[in-house]
Amino acid sequence: MSDTNIIIKNDPKLECDIALIENANFNLESGEVLKNLKIAFKTFGQLNNKKTNAILVCHALTGDQYVSGTNPLTGREGWWSKMVGPNKPVDTNKFYVICSNVIGGCSGSTGPKEINDKNSEIYGGDFPSITIKDMVNAQSLLVDKLNIKKLFSVIGGSMGAMQALQWAIDYPEKISNVIHIAGALKHSAQNIAFHEVGRQAIMNDPVWKNGKYFESNERPERGLSVARMIAHITYLSEDAMHRKFGRKLQSRDIISFGFDADFQVESYLRYQGKSFVERFDANSYLYLTRAMDYFDHDDTFKKKIEFSHKPNNHIKYLIVSFTSDWLFPTTESKIIVNNLNNLARQVSFLEIETDKGHDSFLLDEPQLDSLINGFLISNFGKINE
Amino acid sequence: MSDTNIIIKNDPKLECDIALIENANFNLESGEVLKNLKIAFKTFGQLNNKKTNAILVCHALTGDQYVSGTNPLTGREGWWSKMVGPNKPVDTNKFYVICSNVIGGCSGSTGPKEINDKNSEIYGGDFPSITIKDMVNAQSLLVDKLNIKKLFSVIGGSMGAMQALQWAIDYPEKISNVIHIAGALKHSAQNIAFHEVGRQAIMNDPVWKNGKYFESNERPERGLSVARMIAHITYLSEDAMHRKFGRKLQSRDIISFGFDADFQVESYLRYQGKSFVERFDANSYLYLTRAMDYFDHDDTFKKKIEFSHKPNNHIKYLIVSFTSDWLFPTTESKIIVNNLNNLARQVSFLEIETDKGHDSFLLDEPQLDSLINGFLISNFGKINE
Repeated sequence: MSDTNIIIKNDPKLECDIALIENANFNLESGEVLKNLKIAFKTFGQLNNKKTNAILVCHALTGDQYVSGTNPLTGREGWWSKMVGPNKPVDTNKFYVICSNVIGGCSGSTGPKEINDKNSEIYGGDFPSITIKDMVNAQSLLVDKLNIKKLFSVIGGSMGAMQALQWAIDYPEKISNVIHIAGALKHSAQNIAFHEVGRQAIMNDPVWKNGKYFESNERPERGLSVARMIAHITYLSEDAMHRKFGRKLQSRDIISFGFDADFQVESYLRYQGKSFVERFDANSYLYLTRAMDYFDHDDTFKKKIEFSHKPNNHIKYLIVSFTSDWLFPTTESKIIVNNLNNLARQVSFLEIETDKGHDSFLLDEPQLDSLINGFLISNFGKINE
Repeated sequence: MSDTNIIIKNDPKLECDIALIENANFNLESGEVLKNLKIAFKTFGQLNNKKTNAILVCHALTGDQYVSGTNPLTGREGWWSKMVGPNKPVDTNKFYVICSNVIGGCSGSTGPKEINDKNSEIYGGDFPSITIKDMVNAQSLLVDKLNIKKLFSVIGGSMGAMQALQWAIDYPEKISNVIHIAGALKHSAQNIAFHEVGRQAIMNDPVWKNGKYFESNERPERGLSVARMIAHITYLSEDAMHRKFGRKLQSRDIISFGFDADFQVESYLRYQGKSFVERFDANSYLYLTRAMDYFDHDDTFKKKIEFSHKPNNHIKYLIVSFTSDWLFPTTESKIIVNNLNNLARQVSFLEIETDKGHDSFLLDEPQLDSLINGFLISNFGKINE
């Protein structure tokens, strides 16, 4: 697809830019086609003259393009403001950071809550299935449109790590390095199982109506809230839960002998569920979890990297895992590292000791900050020697 | 409470006996009172003349009195038929096995789906909160009524282990030994969290109606099914899921790009959810998970055992855990063992190496079979010397 028919315009309400591919087909891995694709994105910092300082940050399942600064939709800080910004580990005084909402998402990119041009109705359950590869193909179009021949880095954690890995497979000539945090070559049976229960909670909500809830004023909030609560348990470690909550009671001295939130961990989860439904679309949750489930390079990664990378193309990889992450444990990261080592690729690997679980990359982890900053600065120095 | 007003009658439909405590109050830990308490129970084997061979088997969250033989309500084998029966590890040719449905359950004992004598309506959400201690108090009344002064053993896994421990605390003079499998002194924050999400799934089901769903023909099956699916993930280990399912597809060669059950693990979970709602009451699920959450002897166990056991009363303990059980990990069993060792109690402990997770005690684990059989036979020999 040529990039000549892509236009970029600002969306004042979303406080971001929208890349719009007019009158062209965007082909999905499923064989389906999206017309008039929209990619909502934010940029931070300045692209240098040689266009060598661009970094693409890929967001996780419930993330969005508001990686830094203020998210206008929630009024809260961007989801990785501690990592990305002026004088932050990904320093926007030095780097030009791009972050786009994945297709299938719900913050302005084409997804199930957007209008289907075929019938001028909201897609809902008619939205086609999407994959991590599709997300990356869309990002690549955006990068082309921004006249960037080669990204200095693609960075992502969790579902973002899947996208980063897909970049290395599909567009090796367009990236210098990859920072892959808390990810894996494939989604495991247990991870699929947790996603499936979350989806069942949403699809069992009578308000869901096969994804056609936009026709009424109701949203499948109960189902989505339960899905979020399930997922949230998996983002934390048992140790962190124990440290944070233990069996501490909430606003009472003795148990209530009832079904109120007696324990702090209960009210915490209820709050997580409740606040999530205010900012996220239930259908997007279905489509994005499915995309993660479908991600599987377990048997093919080595071969794909071997054949796709040109001999003199040497992507540098930084692979990071967390000791207490039981969704994407260190063993999964090591499989990637072993594959890359077997191909004599340049790979650095660090397992960070923390009890904060999978969500560690979003939380305060000074070791991660200095690791990412060091990796970027030293490699950026090299390409500009 | 005297046992004179307890009558036992057979229930031909449930194919079990019902102990009925007429016109007396059964006091609950919450301060509430149950009238006309019913305890549904099954016995297997014969009580010997000296009444020294009685074993109480305590069931887990979703169990019932049908520990062996055929469950008339499901037509399937009893939940622990591999362990209890003639020539089985708990040999009913030798032992007299009693298994009663816990109060709050849904297989004939007083619980939320039974009639509230106060208003002749089904309890539903009006059923009072119950605790593990309440369950054990009811079992103790039953044991008294059966004229058994001292149980040879109390055996239980998971919620059954909680009951076995409560027996040792509250009725040490009435038991010779305890077999405690896959349990803990307390329910952890993560376990409370998983239970809470299951309860939210049920209570968010619009059919639940504050537990008053018996007034209509509908049951909160969607919520209960999701709750069961969540719980089922926690009963297995990640390794077992990987071995059993991995990323294998269900009845298809390629992914469907949709929300059907593409992966075997998905259809397995859906089946688990679906078949569970046919046999279990959603309100019982709420009350029993709550009873487990409230279980907490973390700070008090040593003191309670120390003060409640008479000097010459020496209960023998067998504590069993499974390497891959992440709901009730070995560390929790070791806390019990350490407490007992500090009091110089007789305690045997074994961690069984298996990848089957928490549910190992219900599955084919020959090491558990021989362990339980050996412990029972050798100790039974001693008391009859």
